Amino acid sequence: MPVGTQATVKGVLQRDLAGELGARIILANTYHLFLRPGPELIGRLGGLHRFMSWDRAILTDSGGFQVFSLSDLRKVTDAGVLFRSHLNGDAHLFTPESTVETQLAFGSDIIMVLDECLAYPASHEAAREAMRRTVRWAEAGAARWRRAASEEATGALFPIVQGSMYADLRSECARALVELDAPGYAIGGLSVGEPRALSLEMTELTAPLLPREKPRYVMGVGMPEELPQYVARGVDMMDCVMPSRNARNGCLFTSEGRVIIKQARYRDDPAPVDARCGCYTCRTYSRAYLRHLFQAGEMLFSMLATLHNLTHYLDAMRRMRAAIIDGTFPQFLNT
Amino acid sequence: MPVGTQATVKGVLQRDLAGELGARIILANTYHLFLRPGPELIGRLGGLHRFMSWDRAILTDSGGFQVFSLSDLRKVTDAGVLFRSHLNGDAHLFTPESTVETQLAFGSDIIMVLDECLAYPASHEAAREAMRRTVRWAEAGAARWRRAASEEATGALFPIVQGSMYADLRSECARALVELDAPGYAIGGLSVGEPRALSLEMTELTAPLLPREKPRYVMGVGMPEELPQYVARGVDMMDCVMPSRNARNGCLFTSEGRVIIKQARYRDDPAPVDARCGCYTCRTYSRAYLRHLFQAGEMLFSMLATLHNLTHYLDAMRRMRAAIIDGTFPQFLNT
Repeated sequence: MPVGTQATVKGVLQRDLAGELGARIILANTYHLFLRPGPELIGRLGGLHRFMSWDRAILTDSGGFQVFSLSDLRKVTDAGVLFRSHLNGDAHLFTPESTVETQLAFGSDIIMVLDECLAYPASHEAAREAMRRTVRWAEAGAARWRRAASEEATGALFPIVQGSMYADLRSECARALVELDAPGYAIGGLSVGEPRALSLEMTELTAPLLPREKPRYVMGVGMPEELPQYVARGVDMMDCVMPSRNARNGCLFTSEGRVIIKQARYRDDPAPVDARCGCYTCRTYSRAYLRHLFQAGEMLFSMLATLHNLTHYLDAMRRMRAAIIDGTFPQFLNT
Repeated sequence: MPVGTQATVKGVLQRDLAGELGARIILANTYHLFLRPGPELIGRLGGLHRFMSWDRAILTDSGGFQVFSLSDLRKVTDAGVLFRSHLNGDAHLFTPESTVETQLAFGSDIIMVLDECLAYPASHEAAREAMRRTVRWAEAGAARWRRAASEEATGALFPIVQGSMYADLRSECARALVELDAPGYAIGGLSVGEPRALSLEMTELTAPLLPREKPRYVMGVGMPEELPQYVARGVDMMDCVMPSRNARNGCLFTSEGRVIIKQARYRDDPAPVDARCGCYTCRTYSRAYLRHLFQAGEMLFSMLATLHNLTHYLDAMRRMRAAIIDGTFPQFLNT
């Protein structure tokens, strides 16, 4: 899922997100949109799809992760998380119920449950406490969601497995959440500073505990070369700012590795970023031109680089989906 | 002409510049492209059209105006203008011949002659001196251009009428330049701080002195409401950063005046920027969404606002062209 934090995938027209990139779902951030422009305004304007003119699927996170990473003075209690806005310092409380309500106002297709995400490393005791709170919040969020779902069409609710890097806690959490019989599940609390092997290990032991017939979503991963590793472990969905953020920083992903566009070797390179890529950027422009735009600080660089990197990621996912359907995914993994 | 200073119209894909906006010609700045990435590199990569993937027309200015406005330590002599790069302080000399050569390396469709552009107000004596130097430079530039044109296909050369706000100097300059029998002519030295009535007055007295059958180009104008005033005085071409720069600053031009998007009144306004505009932005997004993007500092705001403002300008020019062809331009002027 391309990340559209503030109801925009940075530098990409919605038309190109659907047409050129063929994105079928994007992620938007509840924390950011709660603070600005706010769920009341978005609701009044017909929901997030209409507000941002995007008629395909939208997943919104619960806001929990951003509270932990962006805001000051957060205080976690069983009731929820109290925090100060990074924009103006105003105090807000996110509860498991309120974050569901916010996402209902957005009209999100996938609603994420509030969770407590710890940094790495965390002690077993702290991780257990956060995990058990996450389960209680999931129960409360799911109850609120079921109440809404009984009255009107709503998006699907996904609880989030926590437990830091402890196998016993991950198992306990997954088993408790599966009891909720939610439409899908996420594995959270990864990509928080741990070694990559550990992220994969936690995924490998958690994914099989989640229902096979429902979407399994690992949050916040990953590097292009990691995507097949997650898919091989039963993961259906991922989100990551990396393709778009790295694009803006001048790092382009290609079939032959990374292109750091500011390097002098690309100064008069007439080749496209990736000769095997069919994106608008690669069909149209040379590395030399892209390097010029980057050096000159031109917005068009971010636009073109984002189109390319997102194509790189989405094409990888499309190739994997085709290989799974064809029954050739094991060979795909070995290439 | 949309302005594409550094071989990009800021925030617009070349595909949208041609398709969505229907731009037939853009302006690029010789000063900027001379410094970075340089005419050798652009020439080696096949010229500016190929470098930036734009197969429609490109006009490049002479670099003179940017030298006067951007660089330090400039020194004007009859030989040319010595200046320091605003990027790294390197010293460079632009001569009437070298600026033609640079634009030949770019492969520009319209090549502007080096001129000396004074700030407003200038004394009659200073203006006369600058104007006479401009004429000598035009003679030297035209000679260099004719030599190239006798050997290969080149773009068209446009000399520039100077003379500050003095009718006698404007006349003297125009008459001398017409002797060169160039493919087109520009009126320069306007929009340098003078009252708008004076810019129009200078245009009104200069345009009739330039050949009716050749393009007449007023440089660096204007506000949307001024465009018909210039056309009415016989002007065929204009360029201005205003539509794109104002777009990035949150000022949108509409059929009912300006929309300053940050204003609170647009906070939950579901209407398009301009209900009478058919651009992608107005077809797709609300003022409320655009205001959100602007407040959030999102790149997409600049992209969408630029598409809109350039459409506003180009549509105005298209309407005037149609009215002239229909013989209804006098009525158009009065509406």
